[in-house]
Amino acid sequence: MISREVQLKRRPVGSPVPEDFAIAERDVPAPGPGEVQVRNLFMAVDPAMRGRMDDAKSYVPPFELDAAMEGPAIGQVVASGDDTFAPGAMVFSRLGWREAFTAPVSALQLRDCSQLPPQSWLGFAGVTGLTAYVGLLHIGRLTPGDVVFVSAASGGVGTLVCQMARIKGHKVIGAAGGARKAAFLRDVLQLDGVIDYKAEDNLTKALAREVKAVGAGGIDLYFDNVGGDHLHAAIALANPFARMAICGMISQYNAAGAVTPPRNLTQIMTKRLELKGFIATDHMDIEQHFLADMKAWHKADLLKQTDTVHEGIDNAVHAFLGLFDGSNLGRTLVRLG
Amino acid sequence: MISREVQLKRRPVGSPVPEDFAIAERDVPAPGPGEVQVRNLFMAVDPAMRGRMDDAKSYVPPFELDAAMEGPAIGQVVASGDDTFAPGAMVFSRLGWREAFTAPVSALQLRDCSQLPPQSWLGFAGVTGLTAYVGLLHIGRLTPGDVVFVSAASGGVGTLVCQMARIKGHKVIGAAGGARKAAFLRDVLQLDGVIDYKAEDNLTKALAREVKAVGAGGIDLYFDNVGGDHLHAAIALANPFARMAICGMISQYNAAGAVTPPRNLTQIMTKRLELKGFIATDHMDIEQHFLADMKAWHKADLLKQTDTVHEGIDNAVHAFLGLFDGSNLGRTLVRLG
Repeated sequence: MISREVQLKRRPVGSPVPEDFAIAERDVPAPGPGEVQVRNLFMAVDPAMRGRMDDAKSYVPPFELDAAMEGPAIGQVVASGDDTFAPGAMVFSRLGWREAFTAPVSALQLRDCSQLPPQSWLGFAGVTGLTAYVGLLHIGRLTPGDVVFVSAASGGVGTLVCQMARIKGHKVIGAAGGARKAAFLRDVLQLDGVIDYKAEDNLTKALAREVKAVGAGGIDLYFDNVGGDHLHAAIALANPFARMAICGMISQYNAAGAVTPPRNLTQIMTKRLELKGFIATDHMDIEQHFLADMKAWHKADLLKQTDTVHEGIDNAVHAFLGLFDGSNLGRTLVRLG
Repeated sequence: MISREVQLKRRPVGSPVPEDFAIAERDVPAPGPGEVQVRNLFMAVDPAMRGRMDDAKSYVPPFELDAAMEGPAIGQVVASGDDTFAPGAMVFSRLGWREAFTAPVSALQLRDCSQLPPQSWLGFAGVTGLTAYVGLLHIGRLTPGDVVFVSAASGGVGTLVCQMARIKGHKVIGAAGGARKAAFLRDVLQLDGVIDYKAEDNLTKALAREVKAVGAGGIDLYFDNVGGDHLHAAIALANPFARMAICGMISQYNAAGAVTPPRNLTQIMTKRLELKGFIATDHMDIEQHFLADMKAWHKADLLKQTDTVHEGIDNAVHAFLGLFDGSNLGRTLVRLG
């Protein structure tokens, strides 16, 4: 079997460009004992992958040059040298960015697709959903009456944070960049307040306007996907004792030069704010609770299908670059099989 | 009885200057029913008073112009119109910046000076000590093995944070500005690591050097009294899951113009840091535990006398301005009687 894969050819400086990547072909061997041959159905791209393209210390090691990149994928077993992975079984792996692969069983996890669709394991039932769930409920400690502000609200995590907070009956203000995304937040996610930050001179004033429009005096919980000016606005409009779940800071991933950090950090003290960074995979202890809620919400049709799906490995780099040029909505997937 | 008092005459722009203040005389009436006449023994000045000199929204209202300022004081009852406040009793009030006053009993709190010296109620047994205690133990959740970093370590709160962490057996790195303060941290407080930030080009490199010198890979708890570059350095050297108790940001109190906020906030996410602002008086529920520890540590002679004491109301403004020009060590008090 031949598989095409996307390799990192050089480390991007600032924003990645297509020339930083290349597609290569590779033979996929038949599985030996304890190995499984898998054809990927979907892979996901996310902004945090940008961090691994740098040669910098982080909580995950950098991607190697001239090798297939890694990322979440859901696939189907084609041939197996292990009794627990029968052909036809659905498996999650970190071996995305390729059409097929043969790997030891330790690199794979079985996924039950009887109650959840395969692609949901890369979205609301996967780490993306867990990130939204952990950040909103455990790190942010969502409390009745909380007004919730979400940045990058049209992104993979953001759409789920917004929906979860709405399901639980909260007023939600979402920010995203561009008229198309703002319309999505308003019309599809039906948020209570919407900010198109690209159309605003002053994000803090825009948030103040939306807070007032929902009849609140401030925000109580901020789910931060971007940092920078959004974090500044959230701090400025925070009610005392507000919690800020710091998830990703996409506005800084591409910043080879200066960024604009918040200039009002003294309010962390005066308002007794709590800013807490987190990574969902530190919280696997709550996965069963999380999956129980996801299955129930899916069955009750409370979760909207908001993934952006690109077709084929040839479009994988395009899908990834789209995370930064503002063209994608929801979780960004690539259909591979 | 005549009392002299310090009034705010105009709102400072940037750093306060002596001309922003004036001393006035005022007659102190005999106490009526439910009132008490008090002669202050000590008053305290602290950096947070700078915030109240601005006409800005905060967690306490601004000082009024042409009126005596307010601040913590310990005094002795001279004459009383209330049975529970006998002449000779020691009382705490927010009516500092004046030699004597008559006030309703609701403005006063009795303080037992049998086990603790009067001035300690403005220092280690008062809100200053409670701030150190709450920040280190409850907000920062001091944990065995933690390496502790303290900014403004020679200040009122900082000296107590350092001493409490040392009493509990932790390695403590303290930062302060100037050779005299650094010598104080090294020789009097006997800290494990000392940074004179005024002698360093790069505070982050200086902290990295001290972390290495104490045999650690990073810091686990940062007690932030200053913000800015110190917070940046703490984030840069933080171990995963480090806690940061955000107390005051003295470097920003005087900043009419720009400050230098941390530029590495993405690490809040990658390192799962927790930054939590707090105000000690939100935590009065633990006051009895706190006072029990303070009495025990005082009796065991574990707390060094580190207050800077100025003499007389005429030196009160000088004492306050000294908080910003780097001339004061420990808690800054003014002896009034």
